[in-house]
Amino acid sequence: MKKPQLAIALAFGAVTATAAAGDVEDQIRFRQSAYSFLGWNTAKIKAQASDHPDTFNKDEVIAAANAIAGVANAGVFEKLYGPGTDKGTGWKPSRLKPEFFEKQDEAKEINATFIKEANELQKVAAGGDPAAIKAQFGKLAAACKSCHDLIRIRQ
Amino acid sequence: MKKPQLAIALAFGAVTATAAAGDVEDQIRFRQSAYSFLGWNTAKIKAQASDHPDTFNKDEVIAAANAIAGVANAGVFEKLYGPGTDKGTGWKPSRLKPEFFEKQDEAKEINATFIKEANELQKVAAGGDPAAIKAQFGKLAAACKSCHDLIRIRQ
Repeated sequence: MKKPQLAIALAFGAVTATAAAGDVEDQIRFRQSAYSFLGWNTAKIKAQASDHPDTFNKDEVIAAANAIAGVANAGVFEKLYGPGTDKGTGWKPSRLKPEFFEKQDEAKEINATFIKEANELQKVAAGGDPAAIKAQFGKLAAACKSCHDLIRIRQ
Repeated sequence: MKKPQLAIALAFGAVTATAAAGDVEDQIRFRQSAYSFLGWNTAKIKAQASDHPDTFNKDEVIAAANAIAGVANAGVFEKLYGPGTDKGTGWKPSRLKPEFFEKQDEAKEINATFIKEANELQKVAAGGDPAAIKAQFGKLAAACKSCHDLIRIRQ
């Protein structure tokens, strides 16, 4: 006999991975956690490679870029945007627009760009050139913004 | 003239990095986000390499291990445990024991072990051997537990 958790997951078919991530509130909370941790790390790179270049610390920027790539590749999009996650509260109420569920293909494409730019930032950061890091960070930030514009409720 | 943010950070001396991470509530919230995201990823490895080996997915385990290493090396311990972070509320009230501030050396040592085991897990995961991943995951989990026992308030 299959384990109940797996049986449930299989019953969901295409959303197996989502089902495995837990209920709606868990998904929202993990999503918010992932993005907050991401935001903390993007803020470090923005500060050190762009706004306050006198504070540039190569090791810290590399670590931040690795953390960003870690989040980008962790499957947040695939596992934590299940049905119902436009409603409900994780750490705070979800800001996902209900129309996300009709715009998943577009969001998926932006997510692929986000992953590509994050992986590239990881490589560029390892090189340690602040100007190159700033330029690549701009590409990552643009991918973030596209997705916010598409599926995140403005505050 | 130095930028105000930097001047404040420099005034704090040894806690420069902490000061740069923002106020107490921000530090607690980012810390809770980092650990929640970490927990989501450790749960994937525990499920796939230990509890439900029939669900083992090499790529997913590698991604989870990379995410874990990303968190471990991001400077959470150095930047998000500033004075006052045993009090106050991030996403929820802080669970840091007040005695942390007298046990920082011990906590620092555990943190170094946590980083070492996370980096090793990243390497082992890349190899793709479930038994080796399970064994190394056990070492990481032990480091997590040591720190929880030392400085986290039980629920």
